[in-house]
Amino acid sequence: MSAAADEKETGRIEAFSDGVFAIAVTLLVLELKVPHLADGGADGSLGRALLAQWPSYVALVTSFFTILVMWANHHRVFELVHRVDAPFLYANGLLLLVVTVVPFPTALLAEYFRKPGASVAAAVYAGTYVVAGVAFQLFWRTAISGRRLLKRNYSEERVQEISRRYWVGVPGYAAATIAAFVSVYLTVAICVALLVVWIAVSRRG
Amino acid sequence: MSAAADEKETGRIEAFSDGVFAIAVTLLVLELKVPHLADGGADGSLGRALLAQWPSYVALVTSFFTILVMWANHHRVFELVHRVDAPFLYANGLLLLVVTVVPFPTALLAEYFRKPGASVAAAVYAGTYVVAGVAFQLFWRTAISGRRLLKRNYSEERVQEISRRYWVGVPGYAAATIAAFVSVYLTVAICVALLVVWIAVSRRG
Amino acid sequence: MSAAADEKETGRIEAFSDGVFAIAVTLLVLELKVPHLADGGADGSLGRALLAQWPSYVALVTSFFTILVMWANHHRVFELVHRVDAPFLYANGLLLLVVTVVPFPTALLAEYFRKPGASVAAAVYAGTYVVAGVAFQLFWRTAISGRRLLKRNYSEERVQEISRRYWVGVPGYAAATIAAFVSVYLTVAICVALLVVWIAVSRRG
Amino acid sequence: MSAAADEKETGRIEAFSDGVFAIAVTLLVLELKVPHLADGGADGSLGRALLAQWPSYVALVTSFFTILVMWANHHRVFELVHRVDAPFLYANGLLLLVVTVVPFPTALLAEYFRKPGASVAAAVYAGTYVVAGVAFQLFWRTAISGRRLLKRNYSEERVQEISRRYWVGVPGYAAATIAAFVSVYLTVAICVALLVVWIAVSRRG
Repeated sequence: MSAAADEKETGRIEAFSDGVFAIAVTLLVLELKVPHLADGGADGSLGRALLAQWPSYVALVTSFFTILVMWANHHRVFELVHRVDAPFLYANGLLLLVVTVVPFPTALLAEYFRKPGASVAAAVYAGTYVVAGVAFQLFWRTAISGRRLLKRNYSEERVQEISRRYWVGVPGYAAATIAAFVSVYLTVAICVALLVVWIAVSRRG
Repeated sequence: MSAAADEKETGRIEAFSDGVFAIAVTLLVLELKVPHLADGGADGSLGRALLAQWPSYVALVTSFFTILVMWANHHRVFELVHRVDAPFLYANGLLLLVVTVVPFPTALLAEYFRKPGASVAAAVYAGTYVVAGVAFQLFWRTAISGRRLLKRNYSEERVQEISRRYWVGVPGYAAATIAAFVSVYLTVAICVALLVVWIAVSRRG
Repeated sequence: MSAAADEKETGRIEAFSDGVFAIAVTLLVLELKVPHLADGGADGSLGRALLAQWPSYVALVTSFFTILVMWANHHRVFELVHRVDAPFLYANGLLLLVVTVVPFPTALLAEYFRKPGASVAAAVYAGTYVVAGVAFQLFWRTAISGRRLLKRNYSEERVQEISRRYWVGVPGYAAATIAAFVSVYLTVAICVALLVVWIAVSRRG
Repeated sequence: MSAAADEKETGRIEAFSDGVFAIAVTLLVLELKVPHLADGGADGSLGRALLAQWPSYVALVTSFFTILVMWANHHRVFELVHRVDAPFLYANGLLLLVVTVVPFPTALLAEYFRKPGASVAAAVYAGTYVVAGVAFQLFWRTAISGRRLLKRNYSEERVQEISRRYWVGVPGYAAATIAAFVSVYLTVAICVALLVVWIAVSRRG
């Protein structure tokens, strides 16, 4: 294929992936449930019911920004790549699969945050990000494998530096998963902290 | 990065944001519920049930055009910007978060419009647009901050003029939020009026 | 604005609209409900339950292709336009609003097709397309108004010819709406017939 | 139309189709249901409930990658095409219709996998891919018909070779459909095997 066709091909996979990220992030709102109150919300009961749903809001905001960070990183990988092949296409697909799934553990955590099943729900929530981290690694390794797909102007040091940076997520979220059996709040705190770290790191470009 | 890469980068964030706006606007329809009638809709009961849902239709149309106006303004900011950085990316993300959330207060208002919880629901509805207005301000301030991201050909006067214009929304929606405790109809009337103002203002370009 | 900026602007509104069309068409699937059977689907009861849902399938297929035809026509209007202004933007928004709403009357018709409320549901279904037709006319009239937005190379005859063609839908769907009070099957038959006509007409280019 | 206009037109239909594929793939997550447990998930009951949903996960992953493979093939057809006409547009629409429907049989299979209705659900699931395969053939035949739409630089041998390759899916999924009346596991095994074959075949380019 010509360089122009390669670029078009790469652009189309990127656009498709962007679509999946955009939809996954927007579907999170379906997790927010309108409370159905027998008293129709009299005497401020609607306000109290909405406030009581705060774990839903925390879960939604955390998931939203986590997907956004994944999108920003995904985007950065595509900047380094000048063409795609089948392994890259399916590694990208695997990553997108995990992204599309995120609304499910988000809803699960929101539902069970203050119930006996909280630890399991929180472990599934953080565990999804462990899987996402592994999928991202696989995606990144496929992208750099043999430097077949990489643009010329990236030094091996730069590639290795990025590889190290992307590994941070997996042990972090693994710790958050284990922490679920100590305290659900700890899991959420670690997830939020990792998010802040990611955003801070990505500011350095 | 080169100017071409900057433009591609900016274009991709704009396309991603467009996707989120388009999905948020389309998910509003999920708020419309098919009435489940025990009599199967005999003797015109389906017609009456559908008419009784009119707050859902008002809420949907208002939210639809409010998101559309936000999209048009979002678009206008991107016209002024020639490159993006991490703060802009996350300020944009925050704005998109509020946009994706809009279907929730819309469904809430529709559900409680004629129930005792109406004031709370209306306050949450208008309050969401207050938050959206603040998020938009943050997004706009980040875009113009230090003029790092702005294209050259915009005068400081033009930038200040736009800044003033964008502030209109926040006090307007704050008034609509407070009005909810007087009358839900007043809240909706203010929201619709603000929408008409926005559309009229945007016609002037 | 420069011609290039005009074209980018037009392209972005077209891409946003495409997103809304694509999502509306895909959300139709949410109308298909998995039957919940007390016997778990024993003795072929699942097969019978799925077959009994045939009005859902007819409604989905009809709505899908009707939206697709609207998309193709929408696309054709954008081919004639070289720039956009605020009235065009909001006329386009109104059309998109009706498109996003289509999954609701589709689900309504599917639910009530064989119940006493069938006439009302069918009238709402076909009535939505009357509204869509009027919105399309408004959109088209805004596009050609004063020829401000039209590309140079379209003759007045060509524009008038298209205007006439687009009017066909409104009386056709109005007839289908009235027919609902005679027979629901007649409404569906008219809608399908109109669809076939539209597809045949669009083949002529 | 000019070659540039043809290319823009083709690109727009491709982008619209990409949107539908991206949304269909993301809507699959709505099939995953948060278990509602009376005991709030005490004593590990949430964990057991989540594990018991494994058919949902298998169905989601299988459908996800099947749609992804269809997307990759769809993309390949567009690479061969330099312009579109109305028959191609509607053949593409028919294919997209089947793609948007996939979340429904996926949810059906997940719900009935371990109930008496399993064979019917599995037959509907695999049967949907038979229909998708036929729709894909129709789409492909329309694309190559009379070579009106094909780019010049594809030999007749290459076209015939691709035609043969695309036929593999239909008898394969037909076998999976029939197998549903022997064993649901066999149906799933055949679907997964076909997926692996498709991915392996697509690696050869």
